[in-house]
Amino acid sequence: MTILQIALTIAICIAVLSFGFAAWLFMWVKKRPSSNPKIAVIAEYIRKGANTFLKKEYLVLAIFASVAAVLILLFLPMPIWKGSPLTNVYMMLSYIAGTVFSCLAGKIGIQIATIANKKAAEAAQKGIQPSFMAGFRGGAVMGMAVVGSSLLGVAAIFWIFMDATMLLGFSFGASSLALFAKAGGGIFTKTADVSADLVGKVELGIPEDDPRNPAVIADNVGDNVGDVAGMGADLFDSNVASMAAALVMASVLDIATNGVFTSMVFVYASIGLLASIIGVATARIGKNGNPTTALNSSTYVTTAIFALLTAGATALFFNVEPCWRIWGASMIGLIVGVLIGLTTDYFTDDRRSPVRKVAHASKTGPAFTILSGISYGFLSVLPAMIGIAVSALTAYKICEPIGATSGLGVDFGMFGISMAAVGMLSIVGMIVANDAYGPIVDNARGLVEMGDLGEKALQITDELDSAGNTVKAITKGFAISAAGLTVIALLGAFRAEVNTAAEALGRGANYLAGFDIMNPIVFFGILVGAAIPAVFSALLMLGVDRNAQRMVGEIHRQFDEIPGLKEGKEGVVPEYDKCITIATKGALKELIPAGLFAIVATLVVGFIGGVVAIGGFLLGNIVSGLLLALFMSNSGGLWDNSKKYVESGHEGGKGSDAHKAAVIGDTVGDPFKDTAGPSINTQITVVSLIASIMSTIFLTASLF
Amino acid sequence: MTILQIALTIAICIAVLSFGFAAWLFMWVKKRPSSNPKIAVIAEYIRKGANTFLKKEYLVLAIFASVAAVLILLFLPMPIWKGSPLTNVYMMLSYIAGTVFSCLAGKIGIQIATIANKKAAEAAQKGIQPSFMAGFRGGAVMGMAVVGSSLLGVAAIFWIFMDATMLLGFSFGASSLALFAKAGGGIFTKTADVSADLVGKVELGIPEDDPRNPAVIADNVGDNVGDVAGMGADLFDSNVASMAAALVMASVLDIATNGVFTSMVFVYASIGLLASIIGVATARIGKNGNPTTALNSSTYVTTAIFALLTAGATALFFNVEPCWRIWGASMIGLIVGVLIGLTTDYFTDDRRSPVRKVAHASKTGPAFTILSGISYGFLSVLPAMIGIAVSALTAYKICEPIGATSGLGVDFGMFGISMAAVGMLSIVGMIVANDAYGPIVDNARGLVEMGDLGEKALQITDELDSAGNTVKAITKGFAISAAGLTVIALLGAFRAEVNTAAEALGRGANYLAGFDIMNPIVFFGILVGAAIPAVFSALLMLGVDRNAQRMVGEIHRQFDEIPGLKEGKEGVVPEYDKCITIATKGALKELIPAGLFAIVATLVVGFIGGVVAIGGFLLGNIVSGLLLALFMSNSGGLWDNSKKYVESGHEGGKGSDAHKAAVIGDTVGDPFKDTAGPSINTQITVVSLIASIMSTIFLTASLF
Repeated sequence: MTILQIALTIAICIAVLSFGFAAWLFMWVKKRPSSNPKIAVIAEYIRKGANTFLKKEYLVLAIFASVAAVLILLFLPMPIWKGSPLTNVYMMLSYIAGTVFSCLAGKIGIQIATIANKKAAEAAQKGIQPSFMAGFRGGAVMGMAVVGSSLLGVAAIFWIFMDATMLLGFSFGASSLALFAKAGGGIFTKTADVSADLVGKVELGIPEDDPRNPAVIADNVGDNVGDVAGMGADLFDSNVASMAAALVMASVLDIATNGVFTSMVFVYASIGLLASIIGVATARIGKNGNPTTALNSSTYVTTAIFALLTAGATALFFNVEPCWRIWGASMIGLIVGVLIGLTTDYFTDDRRSPVRKVAHASKTGPAFTILSGISYGFLSVLPAMIGIAVSALTAYKICEPIGATSGLGVDFGMFGISMAAVGMLSIVGMIVANDAYGPIVDNARGLVEMGDLGEKALQITDELDSAGNTVKAITKGFAISAAGLTVIALLGAFRAEVNTAAEALGRGANYLAGFDIMNPIVFFGILVGAAIPAVFSALLMLGVDRNAQRMVGEIHRQFDEIPGLKEGKEGVVPEYDKCITIATKGALKELIPAGLFAIVATLVVGFIGGVVAIGGFLLGNIVSGLLLALFMSNSGGLWDNSKKYVESGHEGGKGSDAHKAAVIGDTVGDPFKDTAGPSINTQITVVSLIASIMSTIFLTASLF
Repeated sequence: MTILQIALTIAICIAVLSFGFAAWLFMWVKKRPSSNPKIAVIAEYIRKGANTFLKKEYLVLAIFASVAAVLILLFLPMPIWKGSPLTNVYMMLSYIAGTVFSCLAGKIGIQIATIANKKAAEAAQKGIQPSFMAGFRGGAVMGMAVVGSSLLGVAAIFWIFMDATMLLGFSFGASSLALFAKAGGGIFTKTADVSADLVGKVELGIPEDDPRNPAVIADNVGDNVGDVAGMGADLFDSNVASMAAALVMASVLDIATNGVFTSMVFVYASIGLLASIIGVATARIGKNGNPTTALNSSTYVTTAIFALLTAGATALFFNVEPCWRIWGASMIGLIVGVLIGLTTDYFTDDRRSPVRKVAHASKTGPAFTILSGISYGFLSVLPAMIGIAVSALTAYKICEPIGATSGLGVDFGMFGISMAAVGMLSIVGMIVANDAYGPIVDNARGLVEMGDLGEKALQITDELDSAGNTVKAITKGFAISAAGLTVIALLGAFRAEVNTAAEALGRGANYLAGFDIMNPIVFFGILVGAAIPAVFSALLMLGVDRNAQRMVGEIHRQFDEIPGLKEGKEGVVPEYDKCITIATKGALKELIPAGLFAIVATLVVGFIGGVVAIGGFLLGNIVSGLLLALFMSNSGGLWDNSKKYVESGHEGGKGSDAHKAAVIGDTVGDPFKDTAGPSINTQITVVSLIASIMSTIFLTASLF
């Protein structure tokens, strides 16, 4: 067996192990006791609503994917009448596999989340420990499914086709699906959340998750389809993209090295998954333990295991200088990722000054809540941007000397950057677990409230929910930064693809040395590319806006027309499904223009300015995308926690003017942090991948 | 006489002509009748307040400028012990001249604005025509002063030193002053505006400009120091920078051409000023005419005159192909500038859908005002970014063939871009006139209200004020786009400066071919550079935030402690000066960190990554700076007009919930459009200029 075959075998074994572990966790969660009939009824509402949405969404996406698959068959990587038809078939199959695997991960996530929510709710009656474990292990099922299927998919596609370019097709399948899943889920969840709060909390003054509110089930469904399925698709996509970028770069290097670097990518990714398995398996919380500490410490455990095991594996299998440098690059990624997470925490944690200052500013009125929140959001961009910049530069510089001596030039440095991204994303299993934990306990809190499980259970789920929010901010900083490094690596992959294509077209081996800012075509691409994330997020937010206005109308209608609903008369139930239908229809309607816009803009720029303009376009997209994603995610998290801080009795507490202002801030922040911000990630990745797989076409057919 | 001497003579003559015309306008305005003693008292308050602030601000800036002058003497363009000391002395003198000319233009602006405001107020009793003429001609004094002094300064410095690099020193003087003047003025004006509205309009429900409001004079002073003096410094800076960039590029080309291209720059700039003079002189309004039409049509007249006269001058003096191509480039700039202005108008005009949709969204609550306003602000970025990208690319492509045949490479193309910027800024005299008209009639409106000049006069000044707001949005789009092209040209100037410096250091003639995105040091610069405008604007907005909180406290204190003030008892006057002092002190305190941050960040990146990182840094700065400046200016204008739209009786009209929400939107928009947004322009220019004049130092002392 060659080293590459060993590495692929390890990857597939560990992926299978993670599925086994996920199945065990699934059964464990399912076995937790649940007996309350009221909870069962409401949980069933949520489960059905989530599955209905997913079914309709996947139907729409199946149409999109089919069209895309046909286009790929006809045109990619080369028009079928020009290149070899078989390559196009392979590319199409890889693409389809990417979409299917992504859907699968989302579907598994929804399955477990809609079980774990009621288990965690009922467990909350017994104490924080069982409730936490139900929520956490439920989230971990999703984590294992996402990372396991991405590793399995990448390894299988690579083993079958032995061509890294096919991975770009697989990755494009994953990310085009994620683009719509994240956007659609994001619009659904925030439509419901914002409308429920606006009529319920603000107008009528009834508590969150009050069963009288017609949008309350839609809100809980939204947590699942947006934060579980959408987020899962997003991180599945990031993980696949980072591996694909690294493998494309590794292929370039491995022409001379017998598959060593390709093997390293697989071994490191496998170790990341293994570390996450161990981290999840050992996660515990004391009887009265702090859930935030439990979540964070399991993340740190995973990080440490990854660092140790990769060092061991490098010593064992790859004990030469170039490989140790690569190990260094991936450690840089890991460390900087943790540091960026900590700075994100600073801006969104209610024990720190930004959240408190925004809460204090709320006393002067909502305009100041907004202004100070936007300002701190802008400030929060700096450490993350510096972190990404420094980790990319350091990873490159660590690996560059090898590039210089081996004559591989920038390629080795770019491989270093891509391995920093792999390092940062190594703990993605843990991240997904923590991220999916959030909506599960959020749902559990809703079930406790709607099922009248008592004050103690409510307090416990409140605490679990709040821990989910804090940890989410950290993991989000992590995810955005990792996406940042990944797209930098994808820019390198794009250049490599262009050069391969140019060589095939007989235009010389090193056709494109780079992209010079002073070249006006590059500059043109940069400026247009920079505008894309802004427009993309605007379209999503306007979608939420329009959709929420429709739903608010429906909620008002129900309160007006259904007798006894407002007063909470026994036996009067609102028409929950009407709200779910509005959210579903609206989300599916609004997700299309935003997603298509990003794709079409890439094609237009490519056909106008060719590969050179596309290089600039990707850069502009990365720069403004990172800026806006960080800004929106962080200020959204900050407003959310400011509101909670006021609600916990500060600056006047619940019902005060400061509270009203803070609620307005939170409502603005909701689509920022859960619709637009995280979708930008996916948008950047999709655009980068389209660029790569279209490189031959852009080379042969462009205006300039 | 050489052609260059002729061109310089023309420039100086036309600059002098503009001063003469400004003096005539000044006297004309001064001669308008004013007799109302109440108006005289209040106008005197405003005049004194504005002059006090300006005096204190210039004192602070004098300290800063002195320190900077000493540093320039010691280190720039080369450490004095290494290069020739005389060059350093010249550079310092150019720098000082830049600061002095900028102050002068600001001072003249304040002088006339604080006279024209009361003239326009009293004229409003007679009708719209005399009131409009007083406001417009008052603004035109400022326009003539700004453009005349910038042309005179640039021509004089060039004639004395015959070295385009010295112009960078002059430009740096102008822009470092503008950075602080715009930031300080912006903080002052929005502190006062926001606080006055918050306590007056929102809490107490008293009208805008009610004389009982202790902050009302500060608010009117703010219009002058922010929108007149600050804006004047800003556009003085842009105008000088665009000429300086074009002249640096022209010098490179003129090594072989005997001063032709340098002469073209001066001739075109002179014609721009001449066109503005004619445009101002011919501006008229009918008895019941529409002021918006009057302002816009005078802008279009100026544009047409510029196009015709430059064509004539080119045929007469520069009738060779390269020069006609340059003429084409400047026309591209002019046309695209107008188009960008029109798209800005679309997003901020209350007859168009964005403003109306935001007004409609306000019915659902302030969160939707904010969300939809931010979304449309994001959308508005796209046409302007495409416009800048297309004009830069087209201007380059028009001129590139000459570069190719003459062996001048990219330099000729970059010169084309810089001439597109000169073309776009050709009508800057008109822009400043229109921009200064705004605060003058805004002040006039305040005086009419405070002096009880009657309902008819109030209606007229309201209409004039609203026209000012509409036109302001267009000119702002123009100014940001022109700044965008200018900084692209400055990037070219930076490369040229680096190559000149490298040659002097014996490192070869074409040391720096460009900045490759794939170079991780460039990439590092890009990511850090992109974060700077976000942090810069955050610091300014937090400054406004803090300062407004202080002032709101003071207003509350006065209403509580001064007996009879709230009730409007005859003879009871609030302590206006206390509010002015708070605004002054706060503005001076808050402007320093933001300004220094941008400068220090440039130095840090330069000393770490050298000229290569700085190239990336400038690019990142330009891209995110344009994005944020356009977004903030446009959404600010949009919110302002949405509020006015609701106030004019739509969506529930004054006092409705939609109105309250729209007021919150406007309050958020105020620092967006008048503090942060327009300051970013200056920030980008300052950073670009520092980069250029520090190029030798960064070449010799950097980590990488």
